[in-house]
Amino acid sequence: MAQTKVGLVGVTGYTGMELMRLLQNHDHFELVRVTSRAEAGKKLRDIYPFMQGMENGELPITEPDADDLAQACDLVFLAVPHRTAMEIAAVLLEKGLKVVDLSADFRLRSKDEYEHWYACEHTQSELLEKAVYGLPELYSDAIPQAQLVANPGCYPTSAILGLYPALKEGFILKSGIVVDSKSGTTGAGRKASVGSLFCEVSDNFKAYGLTTHRHTPEIEQELSVIAKDDITVSFNTHLLPINRGILSTIYTTLTEEMTLDDVHAIYEEAYRTHPWVRVLPMGKLPETKHVRGTMFCDIGLAIDKRTNRLIVVSAIDNLCRGASGQALANANLMCGININEGLKLAPLMP
Amino acid sequence: MAQTKVGLVGVTGYTGMELMRLLQNHDHFELVRVTSRAEAGKKLRDIYPFMQGMENGELPITEPDADDLAQACDLVFLAVPHRTAMEIAAVLLEKGLKVVDLSADFRLRSKDEYEHWYACEHTQSELLEKAVYGLPELYSDAIPQAQLVANPGCYPTSAILGLYPALKEGFILKSGIVVDSKSGTTGAGRKASVGSLFCEVSDNFKAYGLTTHRHTPEIEQELSVIAKDDITVSFNTHLLPINRGILSTIYTTLTEEMTLDDVHAIYEEAYRTHPWVRVLPMGKLPETKHVRGTMFCDIGLAIDKRTNRLIVVSAIDNLCRGASGQALANANLMCGININEGLKLAPLMP
Amino acid sequence: MAQTKVGLVGVTGYTGMELMRLLQNHDHFELVRVTSRAEAGKKLRDIYPFMQGMENGELPITEPDADDLAQACDLVFLAVPHRTAMEIAAVLLEKGLKVVDLSADFRLRSKDEYEHWYACEHTQSELLEKAVYGLPELYSDAIPQAQLVANPGCYPTSAILGLYPALKEGFILKSGIVVDSKSGTTGAGRKASVGSLFCEVSDNFKAYGLTTHRHTPEIEQELSVIAKDDITVSFNTHLLPINRGILSTIYTTLTEEMTLDDVHAIYEEAYRTHPWVRVLPMGKLPETKHVRGTMFCDIGLAIDKRTNRLIVVSAIDNLCRGASGQALANANLMCGININEGLKLAPLMP
Amino acid sequence: MAQTKVGLVGVTGYTGMELMRLLQNHDHFELVRVTSRAEAGKKLRDIYPFMQGMENGELPITEPDADDLAQACDLVFLAVPHRTAMEIAAVLLEKGLKVVDLSADFRLRSKDEYEHWYACEHTQSELLEKAVYGLPELYSDAIPQAQLVANPGCYPTSAILGLYPALKEGFILKSGIVVDSKSGTTGAGRKASVGSLFCEVSDNFKAYGLTTHRHTPEIEQELSVIAKDDITVSFNTHLLPINRGILSTIYTTLTEEMTLDDVHAIYEEAYRTHPWVRVLPMGKLPETKHVRGTMFCDIGLAIDKRTNRLIVVSAIDNLCRGASGQALANANLMCGININEGLKLAPLMP
Repeated sequence: MAQTKVGLVGVTGYTGMELMRLLQNHDHFELVRVTSRAEAGKKLRDIYPFMQGMENGELPITEPDADDLAQACDLVFLAVPHRTAMEIAAVLLEKGLKVVDLSADFRLRSKDEYEHWYACEHTQSELLEKAVYGLPELYSDAIPQAQLVANPGCYPTSAILGLYPALKEGFILKSGIVVDSKSGTTGAGRKASVGSLFCEVSDNFKAYGLTTHRHTPEIEQELSVIAKDDITVSFNTHLLPINRGILSTIYTTLTEEMTLDDVHAIYEEAYRTHPWVRVLPMGKLPETKHVRGTMFCDIGLAIDKRTNRLIVVSAIDNLCRGASGQALANANLMCGININEGLKLAPLMP
Repeated sequence: MAQTKVGLVGVTGYTGMELMRLLQNHDHFELVRVTSRAEAGKKLRDIYPFMQGMENGELPITEPDADDLAQACDLVFLAVPHRTAMEIAAVLLEKGLKVVDLSADFRLRSKDEYEHWYACEHTQSELLEKAVYGLPELYSDAIPQAQLVANPGCYPTSAILGLYPALKEGFILKSGIVVDSKSGTTGAGRKASVGSLFCEVSDNFKAYGLTTHRHTPEIEQELSVIAKDDITVSFNTHLLPINRGILSTIYTTLTEEMTLDDVHAIYEEAYRTHPWVRVLPMGKLPETKHVRGTMFCDIGLAIDKRTNRLIVVSAIDNLCRGASGQALANANLMCGININEGLKLAPLMP
Repeated sequence: MAQTKVGLVGVTGYTGMELMRLLQNHDHFELVRVTSRAEAGKKLRDIYPFMQGMENGELPITEPDADDLAQACDLVFLAVPHRTAMEIAAVLLEKGLKVVDLSADFRLRSKDEYEHWYACEHTQSELLEKAVYGLPELYSDAIPQAQLVANPGCYPTSAILGLYPALKEGFILKSGIVVDSKSGTTGAGRKASVGSLFCEVSDNFKAYGLTTHRHTPEIEQELSVIAKDDITVSFNTHLLPINRGILSTIYTTLTEEMTLDDVHAIYEEAYRTHPWVRVLPMGKLPETKHVRGTMFCDIGLAIDKRTNRLIVVSAIDNLCRGASGQALANANLMCGININEGLKLAPLMP
Repeated sequence: MAQTKVGLVGVTGYTGMELMRLLQNHDHFELVRVTSRAEAGKKLRDIYPFMQGMENGELPITEPDADDLAQACDLVFLAVPHRTAMEIAAVLLEKGLKVVDLSADFRLRSKDEYEHWYACEHTQSELLEKAVYGLPELYSDAIPQAQLVANPGCYPTSAILGLYPALKEGFILKSGIVVDSKSGTTGAGRKASVGSLFCEVSDNFKAYGLTTHRHTPEIEQELSVIAKDDITVSFNTHLLPINRGILSTIYTTLTEEMTLDDVHAIYEEAYRTHPWVRVLPMGKLPETKHVRGTMFCDIGLAIDKRTNRLIVVSAIDNLCRGASGQALANANLMCGININEGLKLAPLMP
């Protein structure tokens, strides 16, 4: 099988770093371009000393140039901020490349919603209907046909996978859902800021951005598709003093009396053919470390009889499953490669 | 003012350690007895090298002996496991001592509830009505008269203080309340166990004991008193890779349309005379580090208009406010000392 | 006793933060001015939400203004970068104030050494001989008379206290000394930088600045005074994923055969009247947590018979003993207050 | 190429865990036996929930039984404590199996040294001369012929690789070498103990076991072989609040004047054909995170002209390079498989 040439636009953030880690052991993708305006002219190993001695470490970092990317690559990963991504994507698509966009620019199907939550104009809104939402468990049919995949947000990945079987089967109330999410600090990006300093984050835990997180409409969009009805959730986020990992505790109300056995069986069935989602044995609950560095989404279930609630706990690695690993899975599907390629990862324990 | 002689039964756990820290700088309490079956015969500084050079470090550790305690002490802190505490308390009370019990043995007013949740017999149930629940903001009238104070649990302290103004004023639904709590690892105690090892806890986050935590009935008991109605909550707990701190995110539903200004003003008024509860400026949210080592309970408020919810976030130090500091505050009140004595603590930042 | 009015120039760094914590419980100093160019116009609690509810939280932050400081204060702490400090100090001294400078500007007695290591001109070198090096165990006679105290660096405090008895008594070689130091991340300051981000520092450990650290000449200067001979050390530094704490492992060579008992006795005698230095029982070794938030310098000793080495391990809290707490001790001495005032601190354990 | 059947005796510790992670992606080894006395009867995924959904997760844990192992396996990894290992090894070797022993039992060539440092009898000392010390950079000729490989200790791996080129070329003094090592907490094993609890280790740093660490004779044995002379080192250890990683700072004295360029070139040449040892560019220093989860040993060099010292800093992952990964590399060599198989690992960053 011939190598597929891939490029990575935006190599200096944590998602870029994670993609390099994963591509290092991928048999069918050859990384041929890495770009960064700030670091162009250096080699990857100059800015990432830990890449010394690995093949990709010798790659030169170039300025992002659409013509060059189009000539060199079959597929490009965009790991740049929203707004920037939409412009680059448009040009690359025009030139016939496949694009996996890790930003938020093509996740929302509604231009208005995007412009409301992201407070900026969507200049490429004609591409929105072309984009496929890259959550493989939900869109495995569409992704292989897509030229543009909008890679899901990290929080939405954990929330949607946690709620999917219950909402699809319809045994929980569509209203009153609470998604209480906690994320590791890589989620804040690799930008220098006092709030992300070690001394501020370590031995600390805080809530942030209650009721206002931009992943809210993305979660609601996909849950509404699943439920075939408008879903509004209360979604709130917290910052964990860990590097990687999102754990979401999701509170729902049962519409009928069900045992934990019943619910557990439905969840297992829903993910029977999707081995990355691990429905844990009854009584076991997820831990972020158990999915670290992997594509797994671990799901634990509990029923609170006293309040008639189904509580779902889901855990992912925000960088791997919640960003770069998922992007690679999407790229695999788009290129006709086994979805697992480069992603048969065991967690780094401990 | 004469010194009050105090004893500490159970000095080898984290709450015992914290009490020593606080008593070290208390002007009116003199620590005269520290007990531990396992370590009797040593000096405190033998088991706690960090106490070298401090007065209390020279204290000999003795076997817990009621006669000796009664002769030597005016007041005793019990920092031993539940079931053990009730027996010692009974003897000490009989001998006329004041007792602050940090265990759960006297927190629940109902013998049945206790025996249900703690799965053991309550052998001293006649003392239950004698015990005062030691949350100063709620029971400042009763505590000074009490001979036995049941020191609140750490989670209940954060949950009750977070909900008190809203439930008392009655502008939230009494049903459907969710308390999503996250605790630092000192909450798991100082017992050797694989699950509490550094390598298992660090860079990790997990849910544990969903729907089954023993602090549930304690929270519901006190909220029901405040609301003058039966309150059932969904209370769930998570383990944070930090030493100290509990942060609870509390989801409620407003019964009427209210602005954040309205709610904020009510909370400020409720705690106007209780300076340890800090209602943060609107838009600010609590962080566990901001209360580390102190008696503060920081409260942040948000209203989610889209779902008509009031979200309350409260943060405390589980060892200080949630255990030993609160015990000391109760002891101060019981002995006619200013509640603040020994507790004017600024957070250790960072 | 009348209150002494003190000011703090530079309140936005970790040493400024720590001084506020300590002054909050000081009976004789009243903090009347806090300055910051960047944050002037706000109250302290605006930038430090954890100061809400504490007296000093209501202080307005002002521009640093020498006239205003001179009018309002008796003593000023300078917690600003080197080069900036020397200029402010000169003006304040001129106006008759006492000054404790936490920067490096007055630590080295030689203008040349300063200019060599700090790569900038010393514009106030006539003040160098006026300045007293503020290590109380060595300079308790001179500090009370000083108008200007150069507060020691954090690393030097740990290194000098660790070597003082051995060099004074002369039973170790004056050459070949290795000081291998490890510091918590507060030592890197509170400036936003990628290298100090939580995700870069946590679960990581690295060496930095081998052979080139600016604290080297300060260590050598003081050791040379003690040894009455020129001392050159190999001093090297590492970054720990902890907030506070420095631990130095110091390798020396014995000039004669000595037992651990001998050496231990000499160390105990040297610090008999200096209770902040705790020579640990034989066989015990220091831990940074045991001194966290305190003035203690813990010292452990070992003799390696196979290599004829005396190994000294010393631990301090770099922010408290290594900076702001020591500054406060110096201020106490300069103002005729008991050195312990505001500093009777028990470690925050755990 | 046919699969080689391998067994793992002792699966409940961190080295056992790490071997499972690595074997999960190995193309030529099939893990057919995992044993544990304490957990026999369960499946691996019962004790390691993070193994759910991975092939090895379904393996049953059995009692260690030599006949069964001999029948089922070609090669066995021993991840059990010293003393236990020697007995099992003897039986398995007798039955013709290849054995990689991760314990200390066959690392020292001298029965006396072993019995002195490990304070127990070596009952299989006739096997000592059969055992090959499994450091591939030094013994790549002997390992492929070995039936028994003594897998090196974690600290010795970092110390020996750091000193090898300098001692072999002979430009440093053979005396006075200091190895100041710092290890992550996985090095303390997975046994429940108060000293390894999260709350004791986190935000803490300490020295332990100065001058007495059992890895001392192992380091000296190998350095003496390299130097062709008796080498005595001062080796001392510290506990880092990180999971994985050892960083050793090694102090030596140059015998002649050399530039950093000279030394750097010698190191690069020494490891030219050993790509796992990465001699960093001049001016760069190792970080434990840069080798996390990998086989890399990163080496940084500095010359302190003022003291005529060469300082070498080396960093490895104590679990991968310092234990299980190295064991796998040795097994690869013993079975005629490419040394890299299963070990082409990029660090998990961050």
